[in-house]
Amino acid sequence: MASQADNALTLQTFGSFYLAGQPRVQTSLPTREVVLAPGGVPVTINPNGTQWLGQMYVQYFFPVQSVDAPPLSFWHGGSMTGAMWEQTPDGRAGWMQWFLRRGWRVYNADAVERGRSGWSPDAPPFAEAPILRTAEDCFTQFRIGSPVSQVTPQALSQAAYPDCQFPLEHFGDFMCQVVPRWTKTDQLMLEAWCELLERTGPVTIVAHSQGAVFALRAAARCPNKVAAIVAIEPAQAAELRDIAALSAIPVLVIYGDNLELDKRWPQIRQRTDVFFHQLQQQGGDVTLVDLPQHGINGNSHLLMMERNSDAIAQLINDWLLQKCQHNPQRVSL
Amino acid sequence: MASQADNALTLQTFGSFYLAGQPRVQTSLPTREVVLAPGGVPVTINPNGTQWLGQMYVQYFFPVQSVDAPPLSFWHGGSMTGAMWEQTPDGRAGWMQWFLRRGWRVYNADAVERGRSGWSPDAPPFAEAPILRTAEDCFTQFRIGSPVSQVTPQALSQAAYPDCQFPLEHFGDFMCQVVPRWTKTDQLMLEAWCELLERTGPVTIVAHSQGAVFALRAAARCPNKVAAIVAIEPAQAAELRDIAALSAIPVLVIYGDNLELDKRWPQIRQRTDVFFHQLQQQGGDVTLVDLPQHGINGNSHLLMMERNSDAIAQLINDWLLQKCQHNPQRVSL
Repeated sequence: MASQADNALTLQTFGSFYLAGQPRVQTSLPTREVVLAPGGVPVTINPNGTQWLGQMYVQYFFPVQSVDAPPLSFWHGGSMTGAMWEQTPDGRAGWMQWFLRRGWRVYNADAVERGRSGWSPDAPPFAEAPILRTAEDCFTQFRIGSPVSQVTPQALSQAAYPDCQFPLEHFGDFMCQVVPRWTKTDQLMLEAWCELLERTGPVTIVAHSQGAVFALRAAARCPNKVAAIVAIEPAQAAELRDIAALSAIPVLVIYGDNLELDKRWPQIRQRTDVFFHQLQQQGGDVTLVDLPQHGINGNSHLLMMERNSDAIAQLINDWLLQKCQHNPQRVSL
Repeated sequence: MASQADNALTLQTFGSFYLAGQPRVQTSLPTREVVLAPGGVPVTINPNGTQWLGQMYVQYFFPVQSVDAPPLSFWHGGSMTGAMWEQTPDGRAGWMQWFLRRGWRVYNADAVERGRSGWSPDAPPFAEAPILRTAEDCFTQFRIGSPVSQVTPQALSQAAYPDCQFPLEHFGDFMCQVVPRWTKTDQLMLEAWCELLERTGPVTIVAHSQGAVFALRAAARCPNKVAAIVAIEPAQAAELRDIAALSAIPVLVIYGDNLELDKRWPQIRQRTDVFFHQLQQQGGDVTLVDLPQHGINGNSHLLMMERNSDAIAQLINDWLLQKCQHNPQRVSL
């Protein structure tokens, strides 16, 4: 078992639920005769009928002694599931548990199509083949280092960016977390994220990459359900028209290191900077943190999984306590 | 939130891990230029390179005060994920939590390809389109009632088998749990289940349907890692050659009601009966429970989710305490 240095934890409650699933009736598809296991009794699979679509799986943990502030809702990024908040590749407890053990009530969801939320091979948004990122692609796109043509320990070590905080010897453990994603499912996902906000009531969203884009867009739709947003390396901004609705929600934006060494990140950053600058101009409460400016160097896009992940969690915790704990009136819990 | 009448729960530890993932290098596939979100920066997806394959996600919860017996390892069935042990469609805590709250250390995995374990659209075992069961199919194949042509409340109510224990008004909540499955991935799955046994050390496997088939096969491969098996409505037996290896492992086999009303279940049952009878003949410790013979009527294939799920859990708990708790020497913890 993964070692667990922490003390025992008393939960008031924990469990999981699904939301947002809708029936969808389909017709005229061919049936298939299959054997579901070698030697099994054959069964006819008829895809015509009612499938469920668009549902989202959510797990939650509420500690007995909790911070007097809205719960945290963890929204993972592209190619990932809620597992990314639970564990680090080097076998430590992830941010979900770090915050839970400091008294935060936490929700952790799998976006529509990912993880335990499921998807339909017979429904239009899933018709195009999904993408499963290769290890070489992840290494570069997630800004751990410069392009590699193979993922041997030596190749990764040589290509890693300066001060690399990613535990390279556990890169394969990280790759186990990577799941397929589709490219035409944003609307289904956004609807489920909004329904999650309605279901939980006011929360602070802690979101990564693609999840941070959904956090901004969903918060603009349901601003009274969002106490604050922690946007970790947002992959994109929301629309400029969303800004008015976001102006009363404190936002913490965090970036890791070495953006300038990457092909795509300077362009992504330029766009998100425009958005957050406009938000600030219109009265928004935006805190922008470049970790290197706080003396925290070498973090990639996956900063919640890296060696110094606890130090970054501490920085977020300080901001959260300042923005949310002392203003319990600002959200109607 | 789902109501939770139970008291606070103190955990010694909890978390998750991945195991069994292996790199697989692929070449000669076409690249794709995609925009991962409307308005985003385009990215080239190159599937050539190293993908991870065959990994399994496992979550675990260990209570502070635990039963003096091996942990329980929950193995879900076809079309399902580990979520099936966490929650019932009518919003109660599932069996995983029921046993945890009675002092059992629990593991709950997503089989390879399911849930948070992921799969590869580019790898051979996943080349054939997966199956997503329709609601009409689930209703009949999972033996809740006779065939229906639609899933309106009235249609379900009229078709339900006698004494139906399934919470029909929450049938849609159940359907949210259903995910795609493939038909050529048994070997990958079995390998990961075996690695899970090696990783956790001796456990009692609580397995459902397809999961129970894997439980028997994996236990035959690693008999010293299995203290006992609870096989809930096994979809199939193991091979007869597995029997010798299983003869020292107590097995509880549980069936719900109304098998004789179904098209497939009498045949499935006949085959599994032959297997368990042989196991008994060769010295195996097999307890076969038909719930109706214990005065528990109306259960479908999904008996761990039905109205009387706690009563069935209690029956299993009694058997477990009898077989595992008083014989701590029989497994080397």
